[in-house]
Amino acid sequence: MQGNRQVVLRQQPQGVPAASDFELREAAIPELPAGGLLCRARYLSLDPYMRSQIAGRHTSGAIAPGEVMRGETVSEIVASDSAALAPGRLVRCQGGWQEYSAHSPDQVELLSADIDPPSYALSMLGMTGLTAWAGMVWQAGVGAADRVLIPAVTGAVGSAAAQFCAIRGATVIGIAGSAEKCDYARERLGVAACINRNAEDIGERLSELCPEGVNVYFDLVGGELLQTVCERLALRGRIVLCGLMAEYNRSERSPGPPPGLLIARRASVTGLVVYDYDHRREEYLRECLPLLRAGRIGQREDLSHGLENAPQAFSRLMQGQNFGKTIVALD
Amino acid sequence: MQGNRQVVLRQQPQGVPAASDFELREAAIPELPAGGLLCRARYLSLDPYMRSQIAGRHTSGAIAPGEVMRGETVSEIVASDSAALAPGRLVRCQGGWQEYSAHSPDQVELLSADIDPPSYALSMLGMTGLTAWAGMVWQAGVGAADRVLIPAVTGAVGSAAAQFCAIRGATVIGIAGSAEKCDYARERLGVAACINRNAEDIGERLSELCPEGVNVYFDLVGGELLQTVCERLALRGRIVLCGLMAEYNRSERSPGPPPGLLIARRASVTGLVVYDYDHRREEYLRECLPLLRAGRIGQREDLSHGLENAPQAFSRLMQGQNFGKTIVALD
Repeated sequence: MQGNRQVVLRQQPQGVPAASDFELREAAIPELPAGGLLCRARYLSLDPYMRSQIAGRHTSGAIAPGEVMRGETVSEIVASDSAALAPGRLVRCQGGWQEYSAHSPDQVELLSADIDPPSYALSMLGMTGLTAWAGMVWQAGVGAADRVLIPAVTGAVGSAAAQFCAIRGATVIGIAGSAEKCDYARERLGVAACINRNAEDIGERLSELCPEGVNVYFDLVGGELLQTVCERLALRGRIVLCGLMAEYNRSERSPGPPPGLLIARRASVTGLVVYDYDHRREEYLRECLPLLRAGRIGQREDLSHGLENAPQAFSRLMQGQNFGKTIVALD
Repeated sequence: MQGNRQVVLRQQPQGVPAASDFELREAAIPELPAGGLLCRARYLSLDPYMRSQIAGRHTSGAIAPGEVMRGETVSEIVASDSAALAPGRLVRCQGGWQEYSAHSPDQVELLSADIDPPSYALSMLGMTGLTAWAGMVWQAGVGAADRVLIPAVTGAVGSAAAQFCAIRGATVIGIAGSAEKCDYARERLGVAACINRNAEDIGERLSELCPEGVNVYFDLVGGELLQTVCERLALRGRIVLCGLMAEYNRSERSPGPPPGLLIARRASVTGLVVYDYDHRREEYLRECLPLLRAGRIGQREDLSHGLENAPQAFSRLMQGQNFGKTIVALD
């Protein structure tokens, strides 16, 4: 058995993370813990919140230079001291950016055979799908009368959210970074209209597309866009604050919209952290799996191969160059 | 019969409104409209939102120089062409800053004999009380487990809100502008602790008083305080945005708190406009009247006499120099 290849943070990135901010190293493979498991990663999820962990600002805690990058994986049990969890089974766990990880049984979740391909456990059938459902269905209660605005609409959370809202009969307006992504959003995600943020004035287009205002805004990006939307919010508009993609690479945080705008619109704004919905994963899967099996929703993946390419894939993600859910396959 | 004395806006105030921004003039007494009423004002309500009307930024529309100031009054019917509304009866109506006003019957509301003194129809049993109830009970759902922060706590809305929250078992922290007001809040409004904003550091005091964070914040003031509170919000804290007292005298609006703060706290923020609750006034009165009759809540009034003193009273209000609900009695 060779060693355990890992990606560690070399230094705090300045602005957009570069591959050179990370370092590949080889450590000893962890020992099998008493009563526990040794796992080998098959798929690693890369997500924007990791930029916030590196900066020390995330709810889940900080990652310091010299530490192994953290992240959710689909891993295979390669050795087990637990009768219930046999080698060969796939689990979802916090494997991190490395090949091998050791866990106690309560730290892993057996993948049901329903989840196929297994990488979907990291996207539509995992955290990003749950985030989209929690935001749009449980928090915003999106329905047929709503005009919903979703930025980063071809990203992992955005694409799931757009499809869920469209299936519930809402009119979905997307925002994406290229004409190609906009075409995809209209053709595959049920999006009625998609604004190319690199070619169009978002405020102007929004005013045209939503003359009576935006009913629901899923804020995945932060930055100035929140204010632009608040100025065009419908009466009793709902905003779900979830991500800060436009800000993760900056050291300063943008302020929010002036409260007077929210008062005038009788707006409601709620913050969303997906960890709060962990206990409702089963309920979510009962809703989502039939849609996926019936081909009514889909999941595009932006797949890289090899742990050594994770830093580059993360850098692309943080520049909005990914197209679909960013996944690294450890072949 | 003499003329109809009125207060008109002379010019847009710069900053704090001064008495010289207004002008007293005499117009003709309006004629009795067919099927309608001629009313004479007994009490005029002065409220911070009027500063926003003057600036042209209020939901209810703008007041331009040369126009009569608008406002809610308790007025007496002095002539009637409506069988249902006899002269001598008191009504609540949009009489404005003037002695006489003409109305159609659907523009006035007969005061029930329960409302005693009649001026309470402009405060605890009127718009400001309803605002407090809608914000704290209907929107925030304040209960015994909550630590509620209420700024401008001796003002019309703040004092009602503090008393409602205290009666529901919540721990109320107030903020006021003088030691005298803080004493009053503790002694008469059920406030557990009151911060003197002119003598204490609000952030420091809040951290001491709410080590586990603020559960509910009734934002009546806007400005920097909203950010100070968001930094000390409890998990799942609720903010009701209602007024911008600290900003009405300024031409620029303060931005809101960075969305990341609201995400991390899973906060919910809702805008409140009391007009949306007009249809629930009866329901509110059924809750509030028994409390008032039993002496469990009270209403302090900051009473001026004579229409000619309305501009000065409004100027004092907009400097936070009022102590209780600002009312002008037209003797």
